[in-house]
Amino acid sequence: MSEPTKIFLNESEIPRQWYNIAADMPHAMKPPLHPGTQQPVGPDDLSAIFPMNLVEQEVCTDRWVDIPEPVLEKLLLWRPSPLYRAKNLEKALGTPAKIYYNNEGVSPAGSHKPNTAVPQAYYNKIFGTKRLATETGAGQWGSALSFACQLFGLELKVYMVRISFDQKPFRKMMMQTWGADCVASPSLETAAGRAILAEHPDTPGSLGIAISEAIEDAVTTPNTKYALGSVLNHVMLHQTIIGLEAQKQMAMVNDYPDVVIGCAGGGSNFAGLSFPFICDKIHGKNVHVIAAEPAACPTLTRAPFLYDFGDTAKMTPLLPMHSLGHDFVPPPLHAGGLRYHGMSPLVSQLVVDGLIEPRSYHQLNCYENALLWARTEGFIPAPETSHAIAAAVEEAKRAKEEGKEKTILLNWSGHGLMDLKGYAAYLAGELSDYEYPQEDIDRALAALAQYPKP
Amino acid sequence: MSEPTKIFLNESEIPRQWYNIAADMPHAMKPPLHPGTQQPVGPDDLSAIFPMNLVEQEVCTDRWVDIPEPVLEKLLLWRPSPLYRAKNLEKALGTPAKIYYNNEGVSPAGSHKPNTAVPQAYYNKIFGTKRLATETGAGQWGSALSFACQLFGLELKVYMVRISFDQKPFRKMMMQTWGADCVASPSLETAAGRAILAEHPDTPGSLGIAISEAIEDAVTTPNTKYALGSVLNHVMLHQTIIGLEAQKQMAMVNDYPDVVIGCAGGGSNFAGLSFPFICDKIHGKNVHVIAAEPAACPTLTRAPFLYDFGDTAKMTPLLPMHSLGHDFVPPPLHAGGLRYHGMSPLVSQLVVDGLIEPRSYHQLNCYENALLWARTEGFIPAPETSHAIAAAVEEAKRAKEEGKEKTILLNWSGHGLMDLKGYAAYLAGELSDYEYPQEDIDRALAALAQYPKP
Repeated sequence: MSEPTKIFLNESEIPRQWYNIAADMPHAMKPPLHPGTQQPVGPDDLSAIFPMNLVEQEVCTDRWVDIPEPVLEKLLLWRPSPLYRAKNLEKALGTPAKIYYNNEGVSPAGSHKPNTAVPQAYYNKIFGTKRLATETGAGQWGSALSFACQLFGLELKVYMVRISFDQKPFRKMMMQTWGADCVASPSLETAAGRAILAEHPDTPGSLGIAISEAIEDAVTTPNTKYALGSVLNHVMLHQTIIGLEAQKQMAMVNDYPDVVIGCAGGGSNFAGLSFPFICDKIHGKNVHVIAAEPAACPTLTRAPFLYDFGDTAKMTPLLPMHSLGHDFVPPPLHAGGLRYHGMSPLVSQLVVDGLIEPRSYHQLNCYENALLWARTEGFIPAPETSHAIAAAVEEAKRAKEEGKEKTILLNWSGHGLMDLKGYAAYLAGELSDYEYPQEDIDRALAALAQYPKP
Repeated sequence: MSEPTKIFLNESEIPRQWYNIAADMPHAMKPPLHPGTQQPVGPDDLSAIFPMNLVEQEVCTDRWVDIPEPVLEKLLLWRPSPLYRAKNLEKALGTPAKIYYNNEGVSPAGSHKPNTAVPQAYYNKIFGTKRLATETGAGQWGSALSFACQLFGLELKVYMVRISFDQKPFRKMMMQTWGADCVASPSLETAAGRAILAEHPDTPGSLGIAISEAIEDAVTTPNTKYALGSVLNHVMLHQTIIGLEAQKQMAMVNDYPDVVIGCAGGGSNFAGLSFPFICDKIHGKNVHVIAAEPAACPTLTRAPFLYDFGDTAKMTPLLPMHSLGHDFVPPPLHAGGLRYHGMSPLVSQLVVDGLIEPRSYHQLNCYENALLWARTEGFIPAPETSHAIAAAVEEAKRAKEEGKEKTILLNWSGHGLMDLKGYAAYLAGELSDYEYPQEDIDRALAALAQYPKP
């Protein structure tokens, strides 16, 4: 018991500011463009769907942003989250590497998503918003925002991607328990939903469609704003509390990671852990940062960096990002949270700048490593998280081959207790790998040729 | 943020001994009796189903029992568990009371059950057992033992009460993820199961039946022992790590509880938190200890204290306990873990001795309070835990009425993420209360008249 298994940060040491990487990037992020004029959007354009205080954060370039006291108070319900050392996994791998992970599964919703749900609900509350509309894929974000809206007394409507809505009924119950209203998307409640259902009555839905519905709801319902759980700058900002805590915790055990790993769907848990370390890297520190994504949805590893819409109905601004195309139809894949066509513009820009190495992992490899994790460390990871685990195990095995000590830090973004059907399917041999077709990427590229290049 | 929301005990301060209340009880527990001879059973009788090292713990009267180093190492995967202050709930109630709770939901299996599953697997491993058989009700125990057996490389067969097996398919998937084999009970795999199915093909099953099956499996399969997740003395012993940690954590904030509360099914989470405090009470400390049970299964509040079997097939020794009768058929109730006919003999004796106040709570009241908890503190409690919450809220409201400061400590025995159907049913108005019929208690009493009285 000489080296601790868990490193707890005292509540009094919780970070009181978020870190904004916009202040340190070698190349500033390109501006979002108006979907109609294709000119840079200003705060006023965004204020139709977001409260102005969040719009200000979205365009803010200050390095540090204060966390409001009422937000801190709610974050303390579960934060600082513990940093764990995966000693049993290390032993099972026989690796000289040390594997640390921050356990975001300890939040009430079971993932990192409440880190931004709570401040988003708070900023809306003080702005005067009465009701929020949002979308959710696998349900992590919808659950987290339900929890946060309940804490601040806001109403919430969640548009949940149909296939997940059907496959994961417990997620809906969770949102109801926290007082939210959840419907399957596409729904009959919006023009966007009705249009898609008319054309594709059996569609499994997609995040892009659900975003279109939630935005339409927000702009057509009084006192309602829209909230997004990933991709945008203010979301990445809120998540940096993860990495800031991890830096303090690593210092408590006199260590610093050689490798920092997160899984990447829209980019928020990845950014949350990695941005404070990328700040160190920009300032000369030697740290390798890996974004792990599914081979079935290879946004960073195979999709181009260009301007694309965030949603299917082309209602959002054009964002400068790696994208598989806004009409992307997600392949069958149990990591629902990683099935988005686009990627955070900040993360995309940092990949372009060579500060992040993206890697893709196949589903079966991820489940194999998730099972190894569950059977050594005990905690059952979310399917999304298993991509980060696959990368960490790959690095740990490499360290063994090379006979090198190495410190690996991964973001354990959430538990898989609501996703056990995926494990059962894997154990029953029902899952397979899927390589995203090149012609689909080419088609998306062609369709986006009419828009400006970043 | 002056008073902390969470109190973390450093890993180096984890208790290294369990507390054995047998050393301090005003009246020693009456001995279990052999089902055939009705004479006190000795260690040899128990060694048919348990390894001798656990049998020795079962009859041990030493006040302190060392926790083996390999057990501590595995407990450190999640322990010490954090002590939380339920500030948001206090605020919502407007009470002057302080409400603390130890969060046992942070374990990989999501409840307090791994606290005894891990040592039971360990002791079996070093004894030479290759395989364990056990039963589970709602699935908390079966999951926890699957996790623990995986850590120590033991095979496991779980007999899961049919109604829960059907209602909670995720539990089976969880056990499979940790490598265990889980079947619905009654099953066709044991003589006990076949006999019950022949007579009642549509039976929902019961813990008593599942115990009979698991014991039969253990005594008829080579290298196999039986494991029980509650009721027995060694289980209560292992769980005391909860209360021992809580005592250290309360001392860290210079506080001590006026009231200690746990929900009680077989008694283990209740005993785990309360026994170290009952030790203080026996030695003069003023602390009120409340066991909260369902009105639908009122073992401590309405059932007699007598000798009864632990299982339906009358294979176990006769135990001195409060019991609703071994042929008890559980009423519909979402708190599956509290549906056992009997109660820990240690807890029963302490109730007889007036050291514990039992109280019963109706289902709708429990869900109402569980929902209040989820909407203030965020974490969604297990239906079992909601009974402890109902008692804590009752005490906090009384403190408000009386205008008294009061420190309440409750055992938050597990999360309800696998039990969301109960919340959905409650929110849909589909649940009702159930008063256990007096004639059923009278009938059980009459059937047990032939056995000795404790």
